[in-house]
Amino acid sequence: MAPSENISIAMYLFKRLHELGVRGVHGVPGDFNLAVLDLLPDAGLYWVGNCNELNAAYAADGYARIKGISALITTFGVGELSALAGIAGSFSEHVPVVHIVGIPNTISQRNGLLLHHTLGNGDFTVFQNISRNISVTSTILNDPHRAASEIDRVLSACWVKARPVYIGLPTDVASREIPATHLGTPLDLRIPDNEPETESEVVDEIAGLMYSSKNTIILADACAIRHRVLDELHELVENTQFPTFVSPMGKGAVNEELRAYGGVYVGDASRDEVRQYVDNAELILYVGGLQSDFNSGGFTYRISRKNTVEFHSDHMKVRYSEFPGIQMQPVLRKLLDKLDYSKVQQTRSIPDVSNTIPHRVQESVSQEISHAWLWPRVGQWLREGDVIITETGTSNFGIWETRFPKNVTAISQVLWGSIGYSVGALQGAALACKEEYPERRVILFVGDGSLQLTVQEISTMIRHGLKPIIFVINNKGYTIERMIHGMKASYNDIQPWNHTDLLNVFCADPSDAKSYQCKSRDALESLFKDDKHVPASGRARHERMRLVEVFMPWQDAPRALIKIGKITASLNDGSGSGQ
Amino acid sequence: MAPSENISIAMYLFKRLHELGVRGVHGVPGDFNLAVLDLLPDAGLYWVGNCNELNAAYAADGYARIKGISALITTFGVGELSALAGIAGSFSEHVPVVHIVGIPNTISQRNGLLLHHTLGNGDFTVFQNISRNISVTSTILNDPHRAASEIDRVLSACWVKARPVYIGLPTDVASREIPATHLGTPLDLRIPDNEPETESEVVDEIAGLMYSSKNTIILADACAIRHRVLDELHELVENTQFPTFVSPMGKGAVNEELRAYGGVYVGDASRDEVRQYVDNAELILYVGGLQSDFNSGGFTYRISRKNTVEFHSDHMKVRYSEFPGIQMQPVLRKLLDKLDYSKVQQTRSIPDVSNTIPHRVQESVSQEISHAWLWPRVGQWLREGDVIITETGTSNFGIWETRFPKNVTAISQVLWGSIGYSVGALQGAALACKEEYPERRVILFVGDGSLQLTVQEISTMIRHGLKPIIFVINNKGYTIERMIHGMKASYNDIQPWNHTDLLNVFCADPSDAKSYQCKSRDALESLFKDDKHVPASGRARHERMRLVEVFMPWQDAPRALIKIGKITASLNDGSGSGQ
Repeated sequence: MAPSENISIAMYLFKRLHELGVRGVHGVPGDFNLAVLDLLPDAGLYWVGNCNELNAAYAADGYARIKGISALITTFGVGELSALAGIAGSFSEHVPVVHIVGIPNTISQRNGLLLHHTLGNGDFTVFQNISRNISVTSTILNDPHRAASEIDRVLSACWVKARPVYIGLPTDVASREIPATHLGTPLDLRIPDNEPETESEVVDEIAGLMYSSKNTIILADACAIRHRVLDELHELVENTQFPTFVSPMGKGAVNEELRAYGGVYVGDASRDEVRQYVDNAELILYVGGLQSDFNSGGFTYRISRKNTVEFHSDHMKVRYSEFPGIQMQPVLRKLLDKLDYSKVQQTRSIPDVSNTIPHRVQESVSQEISHAWLWPRVGQWLREGDVIITETGTSNFGIWETRFPKNVTAISQVLWGSIGYSVGALQGAALACKEEYPERRVILFVGDGSLQLTVQEISTMIRHGLKPIIFVINNKGYTIERMIHGMKASYNDIQPWNHTDLLNVFCADPSDAKSYQCKSRDALESLFKDDKHVPASGRARHERMRLVEVFMPWQDAPRALIKIGKITASLNDGSGSGQ
Repeated sequence: MAPSENISIAMYLFKRLHELGVRGVHGVPGDFNLAVLDLLPDAGLYWVGNCNELNAAYAADGYARIKGISALITTFGVGELSALAGIAGSFSEHVPVVHIVGIPNTISQRNGLLLHHTLGNGDFTVFQNISRNISVTSTILNDPHRAASEIDRVLSACWVKARPVYIGLPTDVASREIPATHLGTPLDLRIPDNEPETESEVVDEIAGLMYSSKNTIILADACAIRHRVLDELHELVENTQFPTFVSPMGKGAVNEELRAYGGVYVGDASRDEVRQYVDNAELILYVGGLQSDFNSGGFTYRISRKNTVEFHSDHMKVRYSEFPGIQMQPVLRKLLDKLDYSKVQQTRSIPDVSNTIPHRVQESVSQEISHAWLWPRVGQWLREGDVIITETGTSNFGIWETRFPKNVTAISQVLWGSIGYSVGALQGAALACKEEYPERRVILFVGDGSLQLTVQEISTMIRHGLKPIIFVINNKGYTIERMIHGMKASYNDIQPWNHTDLLNVFCADPSDAKSYQCKSRDALESLFKDDKHVPASGRARHERMRLVEVFMPWQDAPRALIKIGKITASLNDGSGSGQ
């Protein structure tokens, strides 16, 4: 396109999304966004078409966790509010999602018309105001002259802050033409420079602490992934060989095949040797920390500020000193450049972490698929490059018991914890892999209770020819809730479903998708082993979607969930302090 | 319970809900609401347990439209935001729903803990603030000493204003005990008295206009139903025999078997004789008006203020005069008492409205199930007392072509128009009927596109033994959107589903539920006729849930939708004025 040409505002927005790497655009059509959907193909994008908006928001979140950013289009009022809990999750968990809302034309807004999809009060700003609470910034493109700069401003913020933004696109403005010249300048996605003197001071202080400590560890958490410091993190681990732990939300942040990998640290919910190791460290380099309740074993971290350097996306903490506005990425980069590695020491041996099924479990004659058996076994079965998504129920806790092969991406919502999230996220992640990493397997573990919230998104996966492996844990209800309150209460029960008929309802071609039922370890074993016989590269090895129903005892739960369930229950009734 | 006893705050709230007529409580369990769910049975309530929160909110809306009010329990953050688009619909459409949110304990709030289900910013008021936009009032019960009065205040407002309210219930406060004495005084549900002199003036003016007009009509709209003036409305119709029309949202407001019933008025989208009749009236008594775009034929009402008296829940308009704060119910009551009926006159004959299939359609040899054939035929099949729910797609427009038997309740979302609403609403309405009107049939018309948004609520219906009749219109996508934009666009397509396998997936007992496919008029005819052979009273006549898939041409739509689709498209691109 020649710079002298004109371009519609909607097309401008879509070309910018393409520049950011977006290809599939999630959402649901509605009459205030229909006309812009026509333009997607000319911008090199395509329409996903989800079953509903909440699922679409979850899918956009999953897509962004693979591709770096994503876009979601909904319609005014009804559509955008339906997506809200999903976008709020992206905000809470630091995932950049561009939420584009088709809104009524500027004349209707000015006249306060009593349109459908409104609250009937003539207020056309109410939904943007609601979304402000869960966006780093937002805009309504009512002024065509400012549209290009507003789009650039908002998209840059989305990327840099790694959180959702909101763009309201009026039906009449969408087609207004503006010069295409701006597109000649790429979006500015750099994080601002740190104040150089403070940055130097911080780096020197950290280096000094590292030289004097005989016993340093690295703890990697959520924001190391979200704020894109994994390269720096890996260099730090490899150059220092410091024992490296991850929080639940940091799972997948480091290559767990490294010798330095020491396991998952979750305060009192850690395995004993991990807890002791971390609690006794002389210096903790805590990268991208997010100490939420479930991520910290119910606030049972024993690490003291005296021993800790905290690396955050918008500030640093070096022991008791805080440095607002100093961002971790340039600090890490400078630290890596400046460190004299001959001066850092590491004396202790690293805890052994392996996907070993506990002896008493492995030797049991039982064929019961228990959590104690399942998760190490899953760890053995995982392969390099897998994307593994776990639901906010038992699976989110079970996955802590696995050691990943390298380049595994783990997707879950430990902080926001919206049940049903994982099924939508699977659709988005699988689509992202189809676009960019077709060799990666995409695997979901979801409970039967959670699946009921968002089940229809399996239909969208079929529509787009996605081939994930879906494990549905059939344990008769909301086991995570049982662990917190109401072990046998009927409100934690669900209507039973025939899961193996789902693929048929959604019109999957049997050559593209197959269902399985596993009621014994042997059945699941044979499925795991069967998978090994398929060639290890290319699409052939997972040429079918698989829906595997795994029957597990309803009262069983992963070790860590049982512990955290009790802590949560006491927090809820006010008997736990929470600090 | 003796007045001297103590009672927990949660139990107090539940007993008040029971007093209002609530029995089934909708929602999804979550760890911040689990403990209170234990108390429901002791308050005479029971737990519904929906598949997800948005569906639960739609269901609560449907339940409230039958029983007068409903309650919904969700959990903090994730749950309440998921329900938001449903509650917003209840706000927009004037439906009283009590939204109870289980929130973290007061200590966690005070300490700003980084809990799961939060945005991670320590802000515990953000979700209440979001809900303020779609509630008539809200409260967080952090102070046990004010809890009883707050509960009473908020529940009264919900009933009187006929719109949603929000109650945040912290986990620790829920179990705090308070004296049960307040329960001895019933909730005050009276609307405040009108200022008497102004009221008299208004009544006299209206009476004067009625005496001098030779040609008066009544037009009944949404708020006549929502703000509970149907008794007064019927007395007015019967005492005056004025020709009476309804808007789309007023469908079901009056007994359509009455001789005075003249049909549906939707501006230019009305049938010609109706439009001419209404447009030529000398005086229009317009009760509970809500002139939204779809409810007014895209703002094509031709009625002038000069000829109109508007009756609203919070004000009156008599020709050019406005009377803020004067409520219609006491005005109507006083008018009925004061009128000298010998002085009112009605000269014109009323338009003929019958469920007649147009001659050219009926005589066609085609077996195609077209909208022109379907809706009058549905009108013939409907029975006294039916509850008929129509989805925001083609069905919402098709239903205008039917004349109802008496005591039919019509449920739809003409203003808010959230697709997928009707499936949730069906669950709530069917449950409400099971509780209170077991002899009423509950019938849904939903499109295949809309069904995909909320399909899992059929599972909840099965779980509760509900036996609705569900017509799924299989027309390959979002036909209402096609009529507005993108007739053949792929974004208006959907993944095809095998609808007849749904009941099996949801584990329906075949003796309780059955699927049908109707690809021809004869097939649907035989189903309609079959239904007639079943005894006309008691549960026997609909002892099974029926899921009837009706195949219709994808490009066909009801007469009125085609017209309104064009008006909407021109409004969206800015070429229509909308006034």
